[in-house]
Amino acid sequence: MSIVTNGRLLYVAHPTGYQIPGVHTKYVVEEQIDLDKVDLDGGILVKTLTLSSDPYVRLRMRDPKVPSTFPHLTLGHPVENYGVGVVVRSEKAEFKPGDHVYGFFGFENYTVYPGPPERHHIMQFIQKLDRDPDIPTSVYVGTLGMPGQTAYAGLNAFVAEKAKTSKTLFVSAAAGPVGTYVIEYARHTNPHLKIIASAGSPEKLEILKQSGADVVFNYKTTDTAKVLAEHGPIDIYWDHDGGPVLDETLANMQHYGVIMRVGTNSGYNTERTGLKNLHAMVEKSLSMFGFIVGLGDVQQKALVNFRPDTTKLVLDGVIKIREKKYEELKAAGQALADVHRGQSLGKPVVIVAED
Amino acid sequence: MSIVTNGRLLYVAHPTGYQIPGVHTKYVVEEQIDLDKVDLDGGILVKTLTLSSDPYVRLRMRDPKVPSTFPHLTLGHPVENYGVGVVVRSEKAEFKPGDHVYGFFGFENYTVYPGPPERHHIMQFIQKLDRDPDIPTSVYVGTLGMPGQTAYAGLNAFVAEKAKTSKTLFVSAAAGPVGTYVIEYARHTNPHLKIIASAGSPEKLEILKQSGADVVFNYKTTDTAKVLAEHGPIDIYWDHDGGPVLDETLANMQHYGVIMRVGTNSGYNTERTGLKNLHAMVEKSLSMFGFIVGLGDVQQKALVNFRPDTTKLVLDGVIKIREKKYEELKAAGQALADVHRGQSLGKPVVIVAED
Repeated sequence: MSIVTNGRLLYVAHPTGYQIPGVHTKYVVEEQIDLDKVDLDGGILVKTLTLSSDPYVRLRMRDPKVPSTFPHLTLGHPVENYGVGVVVRSEKAEFKPGDHVYGFFGFENYTVYPGPPERHHIMQFIQKLDRDPDIPTSVYVGTLGMPGQTAYAGLNAFVAEKAKTSKTLFVSAAAGPVGTYVIEYARHTNPHLKIIASAGSPEKLEILKQSGADVVFNYKTTDTAKVLAEHGPIDIYWDHDGGPVLDETLANMQHYGVIMRVGTNSGYNTERTGLKNLHAMVEKSLSMFGFIVGLGDVQQKALVNFRPDTTKLVLDGVIKIREKKYEELKAAGQALADVHRGQSLGKPVVIVAED
Repeated sequence: MSIVTNGRLLYVAHPTGYQIPGVHTKYVVEEQIDLDKVDLDGGILVKTLTLSSDPYVRLRMRDPKVPSTFPHLTLGHPVENYGVGVVVRSEKAEFKPGDHVYGFFGFENYTVYPGPPERHHIMQFIQKLDRDPDIPTSVYVGTLGMPGQTAYAGLNAFVAEKAKTSKTLFVSAAAGPVGTYVIEYARHTNPHLKIIASAGSPEKLEILKQSGADVVFNYKTTDTAKVLAEHGPIDIYWDHDGGPVLDETLANMQHYGVIMRVGTNSGYNTERTGLKNLHAMVEKSLSMFGFIVGLGDVQQKALVNFRPDTTKLVLDGVIKIREKKYEELKAAGQALADVHRGQSLGKPVVIVAED
C-alpha cells in the first residue's frame, strides 16, 4: 500500500520571543500521501531521514514584512531546514530511487522537491549526497553539513594565515557544533595556539576540554573580562555572542586582531544590547568578518575541499561527533526550541526515519 | 645673537570632555634657547614651520594610567604632533642645516630631536622631507601627510578590488582632509561609483560637492537612514563617526559590503553610544576594517607609492588642498580644540614660521 500518513511540523505563529512547541510550531498527522501517485511536476519525492535544528531558523520565523537575508517561513506550511533523505521517486535525470540527498527539506516524513510554489521553498537547494558508509546520515547536517562548513570556511577563508602567527584564540558559546569544530580544527592545524573557550554549563565546559581548549570558563558565573585580561590579549576571536561578550572581547583584543562573527546568540530572541567598545576596531587596527556560510565567493573557494578534508578528520577522530538526538518528527518542535535555551549538549538532530 | 625666545604650547591639564585653550593647553614664552649652543646630544635642532591639528591628538591627552594605542602627552611639556620644519644644526650624519624634515614635533618654535627622555617623545619619528617646490610645507601634514596616508592606505589596502564592482560609496563626516581625499580619489579611480557624503554645515556640503560627491546631506538636519534608504544600499562605507551614523549605515549596507573605520568622532570627547545594528555584520556578510595609518604590514605595503602618487594628483588638481590656517604658535591651542567642534573648513594647520 502506497498511501501513508505524512506527519508534518507546521509553522503556525510568529514568535516574538522564544518559540514554544505547540504554539509557534505544531506537529500534525492529518495529511495522506500516495507515494506512487503524488505529482512530482518534474521533481523528486524524498523520504526524510534526518532534519537539523539550527539557531538561524529563528530568523526565518517572522512576519514576512520584516526584511532579512533569510527567506521567511510561511504560516500553515512545514518548517524548512537542512536535512538528509533518500529518493523514493524521481522525475529528474540526476537523481534515482535510493540516492541519498542533502538540502533544504520540509519538516515532514515525505517531501516533494521543489514542491508547489506556495510552499515558498525560496532556499531551493538539494544535491546528491555521496555519503561515507561509516558515517551516519545525521552527521551530514552537523559536522559535515552547514555547521561544519561554517567553521571550516571561516577558518580557511579569513584566518588561516593569521592563525600561524597568533598566540591566542577565543571561542565564545563554544560547545555547539561550530564551536567544537573551530577548537578541534585549530588545535590540529595550529597546535601552538592557546585556545580559550566559554560555555554556560559544567557539562559544556567538559566538552570544550575534550575538544582541546586550554582555558575554559562558564560565562554565566565567571567574568569574561577577567579571564581575557589574564589569558589574553586575544589575537583571533570567534564570536557566537554578538552582545556583552563581544563587547568585553573588543576591549581585550590584541592589535591587528581578527574577529569572526558567525552568529548573534544575544539577538535571536531578545532585544539587542548596544556595544560600547567598538572603538577598539580603530585603536587596535582590528578586522571583523561577518558571514553566512555558503554566500560569497571567498568562502565558496574555501569550501572546495570541505567534504574530503572533514570526512578524513572525522574518520581519524580529530573532529568528534557530538549529537543530541530527537527521535521522530514529533520531537522536531522541541529540537528547534531547545537550541536557543542552551539545552542541547551536542548538535541537535531529529532522527525522522532509519536509513 | 643666537639666544631667542622659544614659544611653546604646553599640555597642562587632562581634559575630561572637550579641550579648552588656556585650560588644558597653555601658550608660554618663558623659555630662552641658544641656537648655537643648545646641547643636541647627537640629535638635531629644528625650526618649526608648520604643525598639524588632528582629532586623534585628543586620545593622547589623558591620564597616563588609561591604556591606549597612542602614547600619552606629559603634563608640563609641549604638545606633540606631526610637523614640518627646517634643520638649524645637526649632529646626525643624515641631516644637514637647511634640510626640510617631517615627523613628530614638540609644539614650540625650536625643537631638539629626539630631546631629553622626560619629554616622552615616545612616537619618535623624523625623516628628511623631499618636498616639491610647488607645494607648501603645510600640505605635508595634510594631504601629503598622515590624513592623506590614511585615505590612500585605506582605499588601496582594503577596498581597491571591492570598489571596482561596487555601486555605492558613503563617506560620513566627509569634509575633513581624509574625507575629501577619499571622495576625490574614489571619483578619479572609480568614476562609476555613486558617492554619498555627509557633513554638518552648508559650507561643508559645498566642499563635498566640489570634491565630486553625487549626493550630499547635512546629518544634523537630515535623517541619515532616509538618505541611505533612497540612495543605497551601501557597498563601501568610510566611517568617521563610530556612533549613530555607523549604526544607521549598518542597517543600510549591501551584502558583502565593506566598512572602513578610521576615526571615532562620536567617542573622542563624549560617552560612546551603543550600536544596535551590528548584527548586520553577520546577516549581510560584511567586513569591517579598523586601522591607524602607518601601523601594520598591509598598509605599509599600500603606502609605498603614496608620496609620488599623491604629489602628482595634487599637482594635477585631482586632489585639492583645503586648509584652515592658524597663524603663529599662539593659535595652536585653538587649532587643536576647533578640530573637535566641527569649526574647521579644511585641514587645520598652524603656520609657525615662514619657510
